[in-house]
Amino acid sequence: MALILTFLGKGGSGRSTCAIATAKKLSAQGQRVLLVTEDAGPGFGLLLGHEVASIPTPLGSNLWCLQLKFAQLLEQNWEQLKKLEAEYLRDPFFKAVYGQELSLLPGMDQALTLNALREYDASGDYDVIVHDGPGNQASLRMWGMPAGIDWYFRRFKQVFQASQFSKAVMPFVQPLAGAVLSGGKGLSGDLFNQPEVQQSTGLVGQGIAAVKDPMRVRAYLVSSNNDIEIATARYLWGAAQQIELTVAGVLLNRSPAKSQDFEPLPVYVLPAPIGDWQSLMASLPDYVAAPSAPAPVEIDLATNTVRLFLPSLDKKQIQLTQYGPEVTIEAGDQRRNLTLPKTLQGRSVTGAKFQSGYLILSFG
Amino acid sequence: MALILTFLGKGGSGRSTCAIATAKKLSAQGQRVLLVTEDAGPGFGLLLGHEVASIPTPLGSNLWCLQLKFAQLLEQNWEQLKKLEAEYLRDPFFKAVYGQELSLLPGMDQALTLNALREYDASGDYDVIVHDGPGNQASLRMWGMPAGIDWYFRRFKQVFQASQFSKAVMPFVQPLAGAVLSGGKGLSGDLFNQPEVQQSTGLVGQGIAAVKDPMRVRAYLVSSNNDIEIATARYLWGAAQQIELTVAGVLLNRSPAKSQDFEPLPVYVLPAPIGDWQSLMASLPDYVAAPSAPAPVEIDLATNTVRLFLPSLDKKQIQLTQYGPEVTIEAGDQRRNLTLPKTLQGRSVTGAKFQSGYLILSFG
Repeated sequence: MALILTFLGKGGSGRSTCAIATAKKLSAQGQRVLLVTEDAGPGFGLLLGHEVASIPTPLGSNLWCLQLKFAQLLEQNWEQLKKLEAEYLRDPFFKAVYGQELSLLPGMDQALTLNALREYDASGDYDVIVHDGPGNQASLRMWGMPAGIDWYFRRFKQVFQASQFSKAVMPFVQPLAGAVLSGGKGLSGDLFNQPEVQQSTGLVGQGIAAVKDPMRVRAYLVSSNNDIEIATARYLWGAAQQIELTVAGVLLNRSPAKSQDFEPLPVYVLPAPIGDWQSLMASLPDYVAAPSAPAPVEIDLATNTVRLFLPSLDKKQIQLTQYGPEVTIEAGDQRRNLTLPKTLQGRSVTGAKFQSGYLILSFG
Repeated sequence: MALILTFLGKGGSGRSTCAIATAKKLSAQGQRVLLVTEDAGPGFGLLLGHEVASIPTPLGSNLWCLQLKFAQLLEQNWEQLKKLEAEYLRDPFFKAVYGQELSLLPGMDQALTLNALREYDASGDYDVIVHDGPGNQASLRMWGMPAGIDWYFRRFKQVFQASQFSKAVMPFVQPLAGAVLSGGKGLSGDLFNQPEVQQSTGLVGQGIAAVKDPMRVRAYLVSSNNDIEIATARYLWGAAQQIELTVAGVLLNRSPAKSQDFEPLPVYVLPAPIGDWQSLMASLPDYVAAPSAPAPVEIDLATNTVRLFLPSLDKKQIQLTQYGPEVTIEAGDQRRNLTLPKTLQGRSVTGAKFQSGYLILSFG
């Protein structure tokens, strides 16, 4: 398992530069590093000063670089899906469609990126994966995807199971859906009651666990001292906490830094102007150490309270709803369906207050 | 029907600034303008110097501004879908799920943006809609979405119709799918053979027609004279042509401009540094006039040739495949399934060459 590092901030704030310097720093320390960019086109290669390809290409000792090519990834994933289909489905119908034909629709890039990161992580070939993505709301949608899929699955299974539609469709989709959700293993019996599906051993559950764990996936903010960049970085900080992605620090360039905007995060002041890679690398965090940033969620079972750290957001921007067992928090133009420990599941929220960046929920 | 203007370029190149100045310029000329930003958070409002809300808010004479809020849009669209479901579906099962619960998955932002633009366009309240989006590959996925959906629909209908799965599912999904695809009208009989579905009168067909028409949807590149920004803008130019979105010019800031990189596009040099809105507005194009940029596709029926303008791409980056009646072009990390006129449909590609930015296909 690798540590995945990603960077959030306004376009032009220097995220890709920081990603490259991070990859160089960690590989110089002896970590095996894969630098992955989602950026299409020639921009990233120009910044790196090296051609980038769609397979990991060595850049130096312990360092590989990769530019994701989505048309190609879609084709590969389609062929895998067809194999699964042929194995599990009674009446396969995807087999007549070729991967080379498929158009890319919105959202596919993020799904393909997440899957590629998962595969490189699972390969065991890298200690650290440095991810250069769009760094905005779109990136947060990607990191929130495992929890989002999990919610749709849980919520729709009730209504689906109760429907006539389900009875007609299940004999056809069950084997395939089960195989995908459990990571390739075949299932028999009722799909939704399979332990592989219910437990967090499937791909979705593994994804949720990884995004929550700052020793697996960790974000850093990048900003200059420009007011708009700072406001954007602060917003993304709050929105990242919302999906339980830990933000571990701020990389501030073009000082003098306004570090008070990001308390209590550690702030790393980059040389201004950003000159050679060496001095930039020297000013970056010690990524290998455990971060000291506040956890997105703290649960206190003694008092039946849940504390959510939502910095940069104010009370008016946060909405709370409860439907049956699910508590939904809307903030930062995202919805998050709170995963509660067993003892709090099914209980009503009896109190909610917002205090110094924390949303504190009490359960009755 | 409104003219929709959008801006492509690297993050930080000044796209949002250009969008704001464009909206100010056109409203000062008496056009009723809606300025729409997809940018979440406070950054856009700070740049504009005015608070932005999730409904069109007047900013001055003839000028309204809107920040898309995706959680809210998802909720609204979900309630509409439930209404349709209740009307057309024998066994509705979405009714038990509330819009306020739904999580945002990757791709939903783009689908919701496109739908919101369509609705504001259809409202007749605006002459021009100025769109401030991410301006990168994600924006191109959005503009390519109608053609992408159309392709999936056409291609999968054959395999779907032939399957056992189809026979089990059709009695349940047919009325709903028909209603959505035809823009709300009910259908009876076989879904795929309905004239509403087959012809370009449905929403998808209207979307494809609008994106292709530079008097309906038009993009401008934004770049400084920095090499990475120029390379990124050039790449997005080629990729935009690939989905038949017309790029009508380049807004170049921080001159001296390297305008030869964008021939034959008209280049508009912005004041450097960008100072007051007035001088910026004065340097922008005359958006009302028909653009002089090359069309993405030219079809010559006399010689049975199709010329695709794919600037900034080279021969090695272009792949061509033909499966039965469909010709697929892969370039700029996108696939486009070429829509051919009737007389060329079903014919084989007998020759392909790449010449001065044009891919020229001959049909036998």
